[in-house]
Amino acid sequence: MPATTFSPPALPARVTIREMGLRDGLQSVATIVPTAAKLQWVRDAYDAGEREIEVGSFVPPKLLPQLADTAEVLAFAQTLPGLRATVLVPNLKGAMRAMEADAEMMLLPLSASHAHSLANLRKAPDDVVAEIANIRAERDASGKRTRIEVGISTAFGCTLQGRVEPAEVVRLVQAVLDEGVDAVSLADTVGYADPAMVSSLFERVLRVAGDKLVAAHFHDTRGLGLANCYAALQLGMTRFDACTAGIGGCPHAPGASGNVATEDLAYMLHSMGIETGLDFDKLLALRAKVAQWLEGEPTHGTIWKTGLPRTMQREALHG
Amino acid sequence: MPATTFSPPALPARVTIREMGLRDGLQSVATIVPTAAKLQWVRDAYDAGEREIEVGSFVPPKLLPQLADTAEVLAFAQTLPGLRATVLVPNLKGAMRAMEADAEMMLLPLSASHAHSLANLRKAPDDVVAEIANIRAERDASGKRTRIEVGISTAFGCTLQGRVEPAEVVRLVQAVLDEGVDAVSLADTVGYADPAMVSSLFERVLRVAGDKLVAAHFHDTRGLGLANCYAALQLGMTRFDACTAGIGGCPHAPGASGNVATEDLAYMLHSMGIETGLDFDKLLALRAKVAQWLEGEPTHGTIWKTGLPRTMQREALHG
Repeated sequence: MPATTFSPPALPARVTIREMGLRDGLQSVATIVPTAAKLQWVRDAYDAGEREIEVGSFVPPKLLPQLADTAEVLAFAQTLPGLRATVLVPNLKGAMRAMEADAEMMLLPLSASHAHSLANLRKAPDDVVAEIANIRAERDASGKRTRIEVGISTAFGCTLQGRVEPAEVVRLVQAVLDEGVDAVSLADTVGYADPAMVSSLFERVLRVAGDKLVAAHFHDTRGLGLANCYAALQLGMTRFDACTAGIGGCPHAPGASGNVATEDLAYMLHSMGIETGLDFDKLLALRAKVAQWLEGEPTHGTIWKTGLPRTMQREALHG
Repeated sequence: MPATTFSPPALPARVTIREMGLRDGLQSVATIVPTAAKLQWVRDAYDAGEREIEVGSFVPPKLLPQLADTAEVLAFAQTLPGLRATVLVPNLKGAMRAMEADAEMMLLPLSASHAHSLANLRKAPDDVVAEIANIRAERDASGKRTRIEVGISTAFGCTLQGRVEPAEVVRLVQAVLDEGVDAVSLADTVGYADPAMVSSLFERVLRVAGDKLVAAHFHDTRGLGLANCYAALQLGMTRFDACTAGIGGCPHAPGASGNVATEDLAYMLHSMGIETGLDFDKLLALRAKVAQWLEGEPTHGTIWKTGLPRTMQREALHG
């Protein structure tokens, strides 16, 4: 029977959605989107109000030909005033490229799963921590201002290893903070998280990282992406990664959604009265373009099919 | 920046999923499922651990030929020990049939939207309250033990009217409780709710209804069904309506999901360590049958496509 003692916490007044489609999305699909379309994507996302966009990865083009034009996309994004253009880098070599390009921030993935870390970066997590320490030292020595965010991936479990201990996540967060990184984020790379896990792990990591825990990254593989965002919002998180059209699904799980869809998350936030600065119609127009560029690839998300509730149509979602 | 002051509430240890597929699901699809298949559905759901099933509606067969065999399905369900078989009734005539059949509970819909109430029952909400009062009086006079639950529909908004005032929902809950009904529930009939609305409205109604607010009914039209369940769980709700395969979408919104999918909700609950008494493999086997019976109709849900996380496969979800 219901207990009436719980009062939900005040939610943040404003949230930033960080667009991951050009990196986490495109790295998982076979189609190579032409550079011109990527620049259009960045421009349209900017016009829709997006101010943080991960434009690609500095990885060898052989590994991810989809992202071979990252430097070019980054250079374009840097021409748009007030846009924080970020890149993923897997190692020192990539970090040097990000710094040479004066990226605002570089995202360094660190798998909390030992098995995933070996499969993805061919290094154990502690060796990745050591590489991150090198990158931080190089950054400081270079005088570059590129910020370093460590994204703890597979933080809620791993398809290879199975369970990932929350204590291991906390330990790795502490380790990279000790190495002087600027920020950390938590990622449910494979869609294993549920809202209770999110509440619990974010609470633990916030105790260690405080306001250096800057972002939450959820995949919607099993339909819990938005519920997980809500759980993290309740803990005061104000920055969420998402992909236009919910792309980024694992190629080995046909039919599975990828990242939380930008436009679905924007709908939930706006419905709850949380400001995002985003123009909903423009987000949907961009979604349609992305789906066209990725013709034949699965796209996801819900609100583009149903439209906004009648109660939200008049106020419309214009920033 | 994150605030670390919020501690999420303890979630309920056990939750009941009330299967609505045979009523809310089938009433929205054109296909008429044969009675034999419905009996199989009830039996399989029971074998999977379901103990509350809404088997149909006592409405004129002309209006809903899909549910014309409700009495037969109810009679069969009543042979299964410990199964609470319920029916929806729109008026006194239907209520008399439910009582004659010794239904364990009858669900009386009461629209909080004036426009929806007129469209659905051709009566204003206060006239429906008067009918409910009559039904309660007839029930008491008859000596029958069929419980009366009033489901407040369009509690979070309405496709016809738009906004529905929470104060109106609270007023109607109070009105039917004053008329002596046994229980109330809140339904997001059209998929307009978000988790903040759920928190706020359930909190308000719990203050009026206490443990007479027995169930939450969410549609997943815009992808927020499970997030809304999580919000209601945090307020201590322990009974959730759901439909196998997420059926029940509005025929006027192509592609839109219907009710929260039973198997997706079961996955979320089990992942969070909440007992449901349900066998996951059997739920999925039933889902496959239902999709077959409804061939050509849209079905929904996520977990049937992706399977359980590796972390949950060993423990398997057997009660």
